[in-house]
Amino acid sequence: MNMVSEIKGKHLWFDGCDTVELAKEFGTPLYVYSKTDIVSRIAELKECWIKPYPKNRIAYAAKAFCCMGMYKLCENEGISMDVVSGGELYTAMKAGINPAKLEFNGNNKLPKELEAAIDYGVERIVIDGVQELELIESICKKLGKKTDILIRVTPCVEVDTHDFIVTGRKDSKFGLNIEPEFIFPYVKRAIDSEYVNFHGFHFHLGSQLFDVKPFLDATAVMLQLMKDTREKFGFVCDELNIGGGPGVTYINEERPPYRYFYDPVLEKVEAFCKAEDYPMPAMICEPGRSIVAEAGLQLYTVGMTKEVIGIRKYAAIDGGMPDNIRPALYGAKYKGIVANRADEPADETVTICGKCCEGDSDMIIKDAPFAMPKTGDIIAVFSTGAYGYSMANNYNRNPIPGVILVEKGKAEWMVKPQTYEQMICCDVIPESLK
Amino acid sequence: MNMVSEIKGKHLWFDGCDTVELAKEFGTPLYVYSKTDIVSRIAELKECWIKPYPKNRIAYAAKAFCCMGMYKLCENEGISMDVVSGGELYTAMKAGINPAKLEFNGNNKLPKELEAAIDYGVERIVIDGVQELELIESICKKLGKKTDILIRVTPCVEVDTHDFIVTGRKDSKFGLNIEPEFIFPYVKRAIDSEYVNFHGFHFHLGSQLFDVKPFLDATAVMLQLMKDTREKFGFVCDELNIGGGPGVTYINEERPPYRYFYDPVLEKVEAFCKAEDYPMPAMICEPGRSIVAEAGLQLYTVGMTKEVIGIRKYAAIDGGMPDNIRPALYGAKYKGIVANRADEPADETVTICGKCCEGDSDMIIKDAPFAMPKTGDIIAVFSTGAYGYSMANNYNRNPIPGVILVEKGKAEWMVKPQTYEQMICCDVIPESLK
Repeated sequence: MNMVSEIKGKHLWFDGCDTVELAKEFGTPLYVYSKTDIVSRIAELKECWIKPYPKNRIAYAAKAFCCMGMYKLCENEGISMDVVSGGELYTAMKAGINPAKLEFNGNNKLPKELEAAIDYGVERIVIDGVQELELIESICKKLGKKTDILIRVTPCVEVDTHDFIVTGRKDSKFGLNIEPEFIFPYVKRAIDSEYVNFHGFHFHLGSQLFDVKPFLDATAVMLQLMKDTREKFGFVCDELNIGGGPGVTYINEERPPYRYFYDPVLEKVEAFCKAEDYPMPAMICEPGRSIVAEAGLQLYTVGMTKEVIGIRKYAAIDGGMPDNIRPALYGAKYKGIVANRADEPADETVTICGKCCEGDSDMIIKDAPFAMPKTGDIIAVFSTGAYGYSMANNYNRNPIPGVILVEKGKAEWMVKPQTYEQMICCDVIPESLK
Repeated sequence: MNMVSEIKGKHLWFDGCDTVELAKEFGTPLYVYSKTDIVSRIAELKECWIKPYPKNRIAYAAKAFCCMGMYKLCENEGISMDVVSGGELYTAMKAGINPAKLEFNGNNKLPKELEAAIDYGVERIVIDGVQELELIESICKKLGKKTDILIRVTPCVEVDTHDFIVTGRKDSKFGLNIEPEFIFPYVKRAIDSEYVNFHGFHFHLGSQLFDVKPFLDATAVMLQLMKDTREKFGFVCDELNIGGGPGVTYINEERPPYRYFYDPVLEKVEAFCKAEDYPMPAMICEPGRSIVAEAGLQLYTVGMTKEVIGIRKYAAIDGGMPDNIRPALYGAKYKGIVANRADEPADETVTICGKCCEGDSDMIIKDAPFAMPKTGDIIAVFSTGAYGYSMANNYNRNPIPGVILVEKGKAEWMVKPQTYEQMICCDVIPESLK
């Protein structure tokens, strides 16, 4: 859970702001992010990851929550950013981010996306497909540039999370196959290429993980790969990127501190380097969810309520599936509270449903304890900072809500609410229909 | 399957257009809609629904695919439209649609949405919540207007489809409870209200249905309700709205003709009216998916390919989950073809995955027969006209693809592709981060 929620009087407060006042001032539905929470997560991470090895890097996985303000916040806190598309790259550039702070990931980067990344001069491109090296070389040749790369491999490690967010097992669209007869000729090509500087390997296991073991297993696989690469080609990898993954608290999950994952990983790499007389590589991690999930709160206003006697009590909010598709997509569960009566006992079992024309998919919270919501009440849903706004859509032509950043009682827009006009700005009536 | 696909030479053609040329001219990813297919579905529907009873109405459920052009097409074909939000209403008004052709549905219509609907003068507002009548009355009073309403009830009928799109069973956020002690006092209030004209009842069972039985069961429930309403209050309902639901073909589903559903329903109502000496009500149906699903085709370009030896062959496209979330959300299955080599045998088993940083959720087609796709090939995915574009999002900051309308060899933009600039137009960098 976040570090900045408290109940004062009858209201829920968040990073020094009265959420009921926020709802009044900025309207609902509303995404709220606590800067204090985000900054403290980043600080915790830097303490264990950067402090012992200042060459290490943290690259915030922007897919979890991407907007110009979030990039700026990361840059201000001194960390890099992991982008996965031309659009994320564009957003970062428009925010004035130094491209040398951007790592470009993705299983199917388009030629125009790679061209933009190389032209801007991103810090690293993480090669993710067999055909990508050749494509990068042809673009570098055309632009007269050289680029810095890692190679993502599938470490073939099983993890315990939702299938939708598993990415490191053998059967994955991501990464290059790790079989020696395949990977070493590819690595050799990268080492020899006149258009790229090869630095080492990348893996990503998946998201919302609570066990360090798969990290250690995959790290072992990578260290072997680095050792073999030196033996075969005399080439020393100076970087290792272990992707993202640390889990967060939505309901009752025990969020481990970053140290739980990262101390043992760093120790393992240190031990390897000592034993093998291998220079310590710069280590990179790419956390997304664990930086923003708990820092996010969504505010809604209750409209209609309905009781199906003996079965279920519904309270319908002015948002739903279009602004948070995770319950429908992943079966995600959230905690909530009636923000304007936060001091009252949560003595009813209530389902918070949306305003969308969908059945079970438009339930943000199903059968959870609440003070019985009434029309006009403000509902706050916790831990909504990751993959809510970033997956928001215009289903039922509901506009995408705005995002505010709050810190110690101050609130500012980070993303303005979408207007109806903006929502239809690409619509054109074909001549044949006029 | 649609009526307008054919293989000519090496290419897939769609409503008289070479899809490979469409991809070249309009770019990929691309949503393509066949006007011929849509118009012929509407014609089939009018033949069985309007022809025998000219007062009956068809209201296209815009949520399935909503844009100004689609509204215009419906109006040109002489049918009404079912809107479910202020945004859908706004889109229709901007398209110049006569508001007297709009039926306003939704379980939690916001006060401002109801106000707009009443002010514009929509054809019907379908009351869906206990508190809604009072809210409508207060708005009508304020605006000095009277509005025409139906009351949606939950018929408590079980249907065989995905839980996400079931809406007519007893435990539903939609509709008013049908228990006599509850519904009749409410109906009485509506009949007596000086601000609304009450016309009758509405139900909606769910979507993607193949069996007429639940329609007949629910219709029987409604007819009883109409009979009881006359007996109790001397009030004759002059409308009955049976919602949407008819299923379509994605893979091998046998799509029933509209007559399969609608002839027996009309017969049942006729028989009731004759037996009970009840004036035949105007019947309304609200099909969405069945009008547009099969008329839609998505075109993509293949980028990276990957073979996990002995396990799976992947072809990655330049779109995916953000432009079609149905495989991830509902486990939806689709058929596809390599559009530029459409004459070749589909002798490989291939998974068409997207470019998103997600695992199993970003697979548009899993393990299906294809000619092995190569980089640069065009992939066509069939039956993507419903709930693909309408649920599209900017996940990974991928812009939303454009939509074209094709007819007998002619192609026109219906929705222009979103630009990067449009995608970030609501982003603002908070002062505190500058």
